[in-house]
Amino acid sequence: MLKTITIETPAGDALVDITAEAKALVAESGVETGICALIVPHTTAAITLNSGLDPATPADIIADIKRLVPTRVDFIHQYDTPADAAAHIKATLVGNSITLAIAEAKLLVGWSQSILFYEFDGPRRRTVQVKIIAG
Amino acid sequence: MLKTITIETPAGDALVDITAEAKALVAESGVETGICALIVPHTTAAITLNSGLDPATPADIIADIKRLVPTRVDFIHQYDTPADAAAHIKATLVGNSITLAIAEAKLLVGWSQSILFYEFDGPRRRTVQVKIIAG
Amino acid sequence: MLKTITIETPAGDALVDITAEAKALVAESGVETGICALIVPHTTAAITLNSGLDPATPADIIADIKRLVPTRVDFIHQYDTPADAAAHIKATLVGNSITLAIAEAKLLVGWSQSILFYEFDGPRRRTVQVKIIAG
Repeated sequence: MLKTITIETPAGDALVDITAEAKALVAESGVETGICALIVPHTTAAITLNSGLDPATPADIIADIKRLVPTRVDFIHQYDTPADAAAHIKATLVGNSITLAIAEAKLLVGWSQSILFYEFDGPRRRTVQVKIIAG
Repeated sequence: MLKTITIETPAGDALVDITAEAKALVAESGVETGICALIVPHTTAAITLNSGLDPATPADIIADIKRLVPTRVDFIHQYDTPADAAAHIKATLVGNSITLAIAEAKLLVGWSQSILFYEFDGPRRRTVQVKIIAG
Repeated sequence: MLKTITIETPAGDALVDITAEAKALVAESGVETGICALIVPHTTAAITLNSGLDPATPADIIADIKRLVPTRVDFIHQYDTPADAAAHIKATLVGNSITLAIAEAKLLVGWSQSILFYEFDGPRRRTVQVKIIAG
């Protein structure tokens, strides 16, 4: 089964929790055991697993990754904004796909983990592909 | 097949080689060809493929990623320790899941690669999910 | 199906577009729906999804990741060159495997995404494993 989650992101860098949507799609698939791949088909966004409940952790992640790759004017890529050029680099550092297990018809995520869509150049309308395979 | 590898990590940041355990689980599964996903269900740990035999490479990786994301007191997240706050950021940079191929009933890993569990806030008792699917 | 893409990389750090080769292997497999895992079995190389058409973006990614992990002489790992030691760290930051979906017998990649093999210590002869599974 292949489904899509649509996300409206706020301005700038943001982590958007899509755990509930991903779990609902796995439940809907009827797959008892298998693999669920979550894939971001955009070049200035990424996906990660981290703490989503306490907003302090996403805020630290966003601030520190902005510190590591500051938005600035000395990028070669000048077609869009400096924020867009920085976003491409951050996307490659964080990564665009994660793979999770399905057991007992449920998507397995650690008790303190959330599935976080990571936008680096919002606001944008974004999608995440959710590919579910039995096995 | 879904199995779990349990790891006791030392203090601080550490790379723990779990290649032998992962290979043994693939052998045990009886799967001839397929995919093996290795998933970390924790928010201050990650998983990576890198050189495990020579301890100098893991030492360089740990030192340089600590240099990039120093443990310090200016994080917003103050519930746990500064090491814990830094650990969340490092987990998102390194990533929580990898996918490998199975061929001829063996887990394929490059000749100089080890599967390394990456703890950022030890000591802890940790787990890695090993999901094996035929195909 | 398990196939291999072979790549001859230029000197130093380079992003090599392998999208066409990966898409051709998926077409050749005859798989209508499924998962395609792309895996790098080397310790000084990685794989990422990003903009490949405009050379400015790969150039920015390479320059900024070199800025984050400079090639220098203070690494513990001294067996090979300082570029090799830095390469190991960059490989762990960027990551060695990505998972994509297959639908309607096609490999799904975002319209502005390319599949980029990321060499950190060229020139080298490299391989990427392409594992295709139906489901």
